[in-house]
Amino acid sequence: MGELSIPGLLLTPANRIAVDAGDAITFIKEGEQGYAGIAEVYGSFVKCGARKGWRRHNKVTLNIVVPVGQIRFVLYDDRIGSAGFGLYEEIILGPENYQRLTVPPGVWMAFEGLLEGESLLWNAIDQPHDPAEADIKELSAFEYAW
Amino acid sequence: MGELSIPGLLLTPANRIAVDAGDAITFIKEGEQGYAGIAEVYGSFVKCGARKGWRRHNKVTLNIVVPVGQIRFVLYDDRIGSAGFGLYEEIILGPENYQRLTVPPGVWMAFEGLLEGESLLWNAIDQPHDPAEADIKELSAFEYAW
Repeated sequence: MGELSIPGLLLTPANRIAVDAGDAITFIKEGEQGYAGIAEVYGSFVKCGARKGWRRHNKVTLNIVVPVGQIRFVLYDDRIGSAGFGLYEEIILGPENYQRLTVPPGVWMAFEGLLEGESLLWNAIDQPHDPAEADIKELSAFEYAW
Repeated sequence: MGELSIPGLLLTPANRIAVDAGDAITFIKEGEQGYAGIAEVYGSFVKCGARKGWRRHNKVTLNIVVPVGQIRFVLYDDRIGSAGFGLYEEIILGPENYQRLTVPPGVWMAFEGLLEGESLLWNAIDQPHDPAEADIKELSAFEYAW
């Protein structure tokens, strides 16, 4: 995998390493594609059928994995002059498609839990969380056909 | 919470923030107690009743949370001259005791899955994984009464 239609958006294969007592799974490592430093890591559960977003980080790069469940991510690029201007990108992540999604600053994101129970994502960000750095819109703000 | 009987071992309360669509959970943030920089994050599943360890990192500081299941961690200090020399510390982490465990270099650790299915830990380390930096012993090497 690699760059998607929205510039700066990246998918990096992550690994699940078989271990008898329980598998090991990778998330992110210095020097890998998309690594931008890590100042904070946090998690987000999402209930089946529930959606969170839209949110746009203006300075922060996101690096996301989904170790549990299944989550549909929708990205939207409205950056003036971007080669991806006006484009949506949809990506479904979970243990069956275990990859790390890198989201550059300036791209809108929303996501939806797809599996019964709660799905879980982890997000490693390169600057500590600062609510002033992000913009938020209602889910209905963009006409995406979920 | 704070420092435990083994010097350098820390427990830092982490948060679960109620959100209708699914809760947010904290893991680690720059400036917090125990934060030592993050060069890599990885996960480890552990089956119920299975144990992993013993392992001692000689340079790396670990920062661990357990978002799913329940894991018993056993730490053992055999550092010559340490105030904790010869001591074991046992800590059970999971969503019901959602805290971040900081393990300093030089302390032995093993852990066991306590809940049906697989439990999951995440570990944020301050240097990229390097097998040469860690020592390993068989589970039977220390006579701990699990």
